[in-house]
Parts: sequence; C-alpha cells; structure tokens
Amino acid sequence: MAQTLIRNGFVISMNAGRQAFENGDVLVEDDRIKAVGVIADELIAPDADIVDATDCIVLPGLVNSHVHTSQQLERGLADDVDLLTWLHERTWPFESALTEEDSYLSSLACGLELIHSGVTTFAEAGGQHVDGMGRAVTEIGLRAALCESIMDCGEGLPKGWVRSTDECMERQVAHYEKWHGAENGRIRMQFGLRTIFNCSDELLVRSREMAEERGIGIHMHVAEVLEEVQFAQKTRGAGTVEHMNRIGALSPNLLAVHTVWLTPRDMDLFRLHDVKVSHNPAAAMRVLGFAYVPELLSRGLAVSIGTDGAPSNNRMDMIDEMWLTTLIHKGRTLNPATLPAVTILEMATLHGARCMLWEDEIGSLEPGKKADLVIVHPRSAGTLPVHDPVSAMVYSMHSSDVESSMCDGRWLMRDGKVLTVDEKAVLEEAKSRAAFLRKKAGIELPDRFPTVRVR
Amino acid sequence: MAQTLIRNGFVISMNAGRQAFENGDVLVEDDRIKAVGVIADELIAPDADIVDATDCIVLPGLVNSHVHTSQQLERGLADDVDLLTWLHERTWPFESALTEEDSYLSSLACGLELIHSGVTTFAEAGGQHVDGMGRAVTEIGLRAALCESIMDCGEGLPKGWVRSTDECMERQVAHYEKWHGAENGRIRMQFGLRTIFNCSDELLVRSREMAEERGIGIHMHVAEVLEEVQFAQKTRGAGTVEHMNRIGALSPNLLAVHTVWLTPRDMDLFRLHDVKVSHNPAAAMRVLGFAYVPELLSRGLAVSIGTDGAPSNNRMDMIDEMWLTTLIHKGRTLNPATLPAVTILEMATLHGARCMLWEDEIGSLEPGKKADLVIVHPRSAGTLPVHDPVSAMVYSMHSSDVESSMCDGRWLMRDGKVLTVDEKAVLEEAKSRAAFLRKKAGIELPDRFPTVRVR
Repeated sequence: MAQTLIRNGFVISMNAGRQAFENGDVLVEDDRIKAVGVIADELIAPDADIVDATDCIVLPGLVNSHVHTSQQLERGLADDVDLLTWLHERTWPFESALTEEDSYLSSLACGLELIHSGVTTFAEAGGQHVDGMGRAVTEIGLRAALCESIMDCGEGLPKGWVRSTDECMERQVAHYEKWHGAENGRIRMQFGLRTIFNCSDELLVRSREMAEERGIGIHMHVAEVLEEVQFAQKTRGAGTVEHMNRIGALSPNLLAVHTVWLTPRDMDLFRLHDVKVSHNPAAAMRVLGFAYVPELLSRGLAVSIGTDGAPSNNRMDMIDEMWLTTLIHKGRTLNPATLPAVTILEMATLHGARCMLWEDEIGSLEPGKKADLVIVHPRSAGTLPVHDPVSAMVYSMHSSDVESSMCDGRWLMRDGKVLTVDEKAVLEEAKSRAAFLRKKAGIELPDRFPTVRVR
Repeated sequence: MAQTLIRNGFVISMNAGRQAFENGDVLVEDDRIKAVGVIADELIAPDADIVDATDCIVLPGLVNSHVHTSQQLERGLADDVDLLTWLHERTWPFESALTEEDSYLSSLACGLELIHSGVTTFAEAGGQHVDGMGRAVTEIGLRAALCESIMDCGEGLPKGWVRSTDECMERQVAHYEKWHGAENGRIRMQFGLRTIFNCSDELLVRSREMAEERGIGIHMHVAEVLEEVQFAQKTRGAGTVEHMNRIGALSPNLLAVHTVWLTPRDMDLFRLHDVKVSHNPAAAMRVLGFAYVPELLSRGLAVSIGTDGAPSNNRMDMIDEMWLTTLIHKGRTLNPATLPAVTILEMATLHGARCMLWEDEIGSLEPGKKADLVIVHPRSAGTLPVHDPVSAMVYSMHSSDVESSMCDGRWLMRDGKVLTVDEKAVLEEAKSRAAFLRKKAGIELPDRFPTVRVR
C-alpha cells in the first residue's frame, strides 16, 4: 500500500462540518484519502512519501461540470459574433470537421488546461467522438463523465449528427457498456442530450428512464437562450422546463446546463425533482444572459460551475470562473455579500460532485473518499499577501498558482509540471492541427486590424 | 545611442490607422520608439540588441487608470462585506495605519503585480504618502501619475486625513513641485480628490483652476455609489455630476472614476466638457453596479480601464480586467458583439493615455513615442491554439503569459523575471509587514470555516 502525506498546509476539507485545518495534513493511501487534519502517527507508514505544503492551500480537486473537450482547438474562432454566426459559421463547421483522433488531441489539450486550473473531475458537455475523449481521459488521468451529444431532430445541423431515436438510444447504451466504470471507476458515462431543439419527447423520456435504471446522469443544455424557450412554447405548448415536467423528463439525474431563462416556477420544478444545475458564468455573460444562481441555491439545489467550451469562454479555467461567478452575481444583486467565497467553493467542489451524482466519492477531503486534491501555492506578486486563504482561493488566485494536482491517488501535476502526458508535444500538435482544421472547415477570420504581413 | 530591435512578433501598433504587423518589428532607440512594422535596414545600428519575438504578441504597455498602490497589503481583508464595513472597519483603519515606508513597500508590491500583468503606466488613485509612492516608482521603473487623496470635509474619517482647503491646495502644489516631471518625465502628478463627500465646492473649483494652469490631471471618484449621488442632491441641490457642472468643476483635465450612477444628461455633460472616465469592472461588480461603458464610448469619450485597489478587486491584473470588461457589458446589453476585442484594447492603451493626458507620448507604438511596450508569449495550455492574436489578447491571455515589459526604453521584466527590484525580497517583506499592519489596525477576520489550528 502506497501512502502520501501532504503536510502542514491550510487544508480546506469541505467535510460535513466544513472544517479547515491551519497547518494541517492529508494522508492518502492508494487511491483513497485515509485521514485529514490532525493525523495520528500510527496511521502513517514509515515509507510514506512526504510532501511539504507549508504556505500552501490544500483543497478538494475542483469539478468542472460542463466542458466541451471537443471544442478546445476552436478557441478564439468565434469571438464577438452573434449566436447564429457562432453556431452556423464557426462552431458547427469546426466541430464537424473533427475526426476521432482530433477529438482525442482536443481532449488532451483541454485536459491540460483543466489540470493547470485545479480541476480533477469534469463533465463532458457532449461531442461526437466518445472513444477519442475516452482515450484521452485514460491517458491524462482526470476523472470524467463522458457523453455523446445526441440529437434525433432539428434543422441545419452538420451531416450525420441527427439520427433516429432508436439509433440514439443504442449508441448511448453502447458507450455506456464500453466506458462506464473504466479505469478503476475514474471514467463514467452520462446520456448527452443537446437541447430541446434537437431532442424529441420520446428521446427525452426514454433517456430519463434508461439513465435512472443505470444510475447515471443526463447532461443537457436547458433554457440556454430565450429563443429556445420560445421554440418550446411554440412547438410543444410550454417553455422548456415546464414541458419537460409535463412529459416526465425532469429527474434527479438531470444536469441542466446554463438555465439562464428560468421562471420562478421553473426553479420550483427543479426543486421538486431535485434537478442539478451547471452555471457557466463566462459563457452566460458572453451570449446568454444572467442566470438566477442565488435564487437556485436558496432553493437548496446543487448549482455547480462549468467553463463551457473554448469558443464560448475562452478560458477553460475554473479559478477564473469562481472569481467571475461571485462578481457577476454581486453585481446583478447589487450586494457585495452575495455568493461569498465559502459558497463559491461549495459550488466548485461539493455541488460539482452532487451534479455528477458522484458525491459519495468526491467533492471533499474525507477519509474513505477518492484522493482527488489540489495544492495551491500563493507566492506571486498577484497573490501576496494572503490574509484569508479561503477568500484568496476565490478572489486572488490564478491557475498559475496551482502547484500540484492528484486524481484517484495519482499525481497529475507536481510543481506546475504535468506528469501524465508530454504537455509540450500535445500543445505543439494541437497548434498545427487547429490551423489545419480551420482550413478544412473553411473558416476565414476577418482581420481585426488592417494587418500587414511583413514576413 | 542604444538600440533594441524586437523582431518577428505580431505587433499591435494602435497607431492612427490601427495597423497590425504579422511577423513585424519594433525598433527602440534610447527611451523612444524609432520605427514600427517594416523597418529599413539602414535605421538599425550594427550593435542593436536583438530580441526574438517569434510567436509573440507585441503591444503598447497597458495603462491602468485607477489603482490604489497604498492598499496592496490589504488584499483579502475586506471580501464579501457591505460597503460600510469595507470602509469603516477594514480599509480606513488599515490605510491609516500605513507609514510612508509602508506606502513605499505597498507601492513596490503593487508595481510588481502591475508589471506582470502588462502595465507600464498607472494612475494612482490617491493615498496618503506621495513620497513613499514616488520612491517606489522611481526604483521599479513604471510610468505613473501620482496623487495624494485630499479631503477638506467629511465625517468619520481617520485622524489627520481632513485638512483645511488652503492646506490641501498647498500640499498638492508641494507634491507637484517635488515630483512632476521627475525621472526623465516618467513621473507626473495629478490633483487627487477623494469624493464629493470629502471635497468642498471651493476645493473642487480651485483644483480645476490650478490643474488647468499646470496642464495636469485631476483624479476623483465620481458617481461611485448611489448614496453619493443622493448625498450631493441633498446637500448641494443636484447629483454629483450636475452639481460639478454648475460650479464649473468639470473639465478635460478631470478623470472621473467608476461613474456607475450616471444619468444620460450626466454623460452628455461629460461629453460637453470632454471629461475622462476610468471604468473599474471588478470593483463595479463587487460593490458599485454596472457602469454605462458602451454608452460613454458611443459619445466619443475616453473610457479607460482601472483595477482599483487590492481590497476592492483583488486582482490588480489588467489582463483579467480586459476580459471582465468585455464580458460584463456583453451580459448587460445581451449582445455578444458589445465591446469587441479591438475596443477593449483601445480602452487599455489609447484611452488610458488620453485619460492621463499623456497621449502625445504613450498609448501606441509609433515613431517618436516613448518606448513603453510589452511582449506576450502564448505557449501554455490555457492560451493555445491562437487563431486570432487580437482577440486572444482580450479573451484568453493571463498575466502569466506576459513575458517581457519595457518602460521608457528600459526593460522592467524579461522572460517573466522583474529586473528593476528584488521581487522575492519585496514580497517576503510585504507578507510580514501586512500581518503586522493588520494587527496594528486592530482588524480581526472571522474564520470562514470552523478552523482547527493544528500546529
């Protein structure tokens, strides 16, 4: 049995009592946490690997509850344009140009950014090549719930994306059989539904039934833009959430993403069915609108944080998203006490775990849980002084302050260096492949400034 | 004459034609820019120092138009609390506990964070120890307009902050005589007025007259919080801006900071008098509200970006503020095309220069202007791929991607290492001094979580 003792850090446990430990320790054994805080000497093996965390903050690995790993190579291709241009002229052409190998590379590149920003677990938002994602996650060592973005109706979509309802269900089950529980349980599957634009009622209801049977999540963009709610009203007689309630498609297994255009009744329906929510602050600000995050939290719902994909944000950076989440909701409510640091950390850890139906194993540093943790080292001009490590995590830190990261008991990064894959090689390949894919997809960006090509 | 040739970067010049140069060059001679873009061989001295900027973005040094250098050691002491607690129980006690030596140290620590985030010029928001700031700026090499925050009325302020109107004016002039034009013109003075709560009409009017005589700026928090506008209405018969207009206190020399609570008429008055504006997005979101930035820009006003002080933000990071500025105004206007990357870069460079009355010398890379520039190197998992370097500067970059920085022709930072002061030593001292000052000021922070002190 291999032990690692992380010593003398400011440990934010997020346990039931929300205890923190100043100059505290975390003992890891194999893939699990053995003890936290004050650790009895007899628990520590003589050959335990000792990691000094003096001046560092040790916390549960962050959970990114909505990220399009397949869009990573598209970063910066769709800035400052309206939603239709974003979708039809940039994101769909680019994403549909990806092969499975591209998806693998894209997921690796995205995984690197996630690791640097303190993420140990993510929920895939839905791409087209689950096997590519799965291979990448296997190698890079993150914990993830993957999914294919399935669609059985809708207009104007890239060729091959829309399938029959039966075929959609079969594919979901096949992915489930292949990947769910892989890699010591580190990889799980969700059923991925794109939006109500692209899902028949039959698909919604059958997905709910099959997800419940298997105890897995359903990942779906819900009430994302006003047009979507209006579309549901027009074609199905009620807004997205109200309609899903009527047909029995709301359930505790549903992770509803964005949820910007909710009515108070929609929020009550979420509560009634214990629907989970992923808030994506940067994407919301860019295209969607202000989500009712304090209102959802006050109903006792699990509201987590996601980065969305690179062309929607462009920072796949949970540390920045934590800062942004507290800022925009303080601004919206004109109240500096809205979403304080403690709440933000709960959203990024415990709520993230609940949203992925994984709270029995992750989301806090507690004996018996999986050893998913990060070590943050404030030592830069941008972080010092630290008067309050808890608030510093939300307000002052950057991903560059994340020093080390462990998932499932395995170090993913030490001292800022990723150990599981060759970071430089992945990024070099990502760079050249991104340029190739842009050409393949036929996307031409206008110059922002009149540009002289000197060489 | 010493020359530096920065070669083969993506050069964002911000010149009158807003030209960019792909694989372009910048030639610096002594403290000035000699040529930009395509450079004739005969201009380049044989002994010019050559700096390779392949794959890098070269742009004018950013201008932070509102930063409290004296609050740097207070970072994290006032998060998630209401404005009165922020002011009376945290910021005033802390700031009034500073000696001149503390202000010097605080300014050094702040200057380090500014350099790392690509800033070469800042406007001091107003502290109590101009000589401390001045010494720090002299050493660290940044360009700055300093000021003392003067007050001739108001209640509940720390002892010694309120002085007679005459004394206030004398002090302003004395600082001006001592510091304006120092260090090859790198240091300037502004007249610093705190808010209308703390400035008599006489002080406002005399400051305007004396600033105009000397051709220098006035730095003042204006229409910052609703209570301030209501206070002006109650005590002076009109809101802050309307009242300042009536008494003749609006002028092109005035840099109005925050300006969240403006009426359309206030904005028209700004235009009439060519008042300059500093927008501080993070501070606005935290405490103040949404500023009318697109509306101000559409009136042709110079609207720049500031970070505010460490307890208001807590990231003194212009790169993050650029990202935040575009996001929050897209969200507020529900339009993804609001404040596109080009506009944000104008705000952070040219408008910053205009707001500091310094546009003849800084704000763009043009022959004859001061050599203030930064080199950004996207090579991390958080930045690659770069499809569009202009939008990448606003959406994807972090301060950790700023590689080198030059001010007044002198390198402040190369390859992420600050050259002008001993960064590690400054930060160590800042850390211990911050803890001392917290005790001296009698500030006790409640634990965020129930905290066990293990060692």
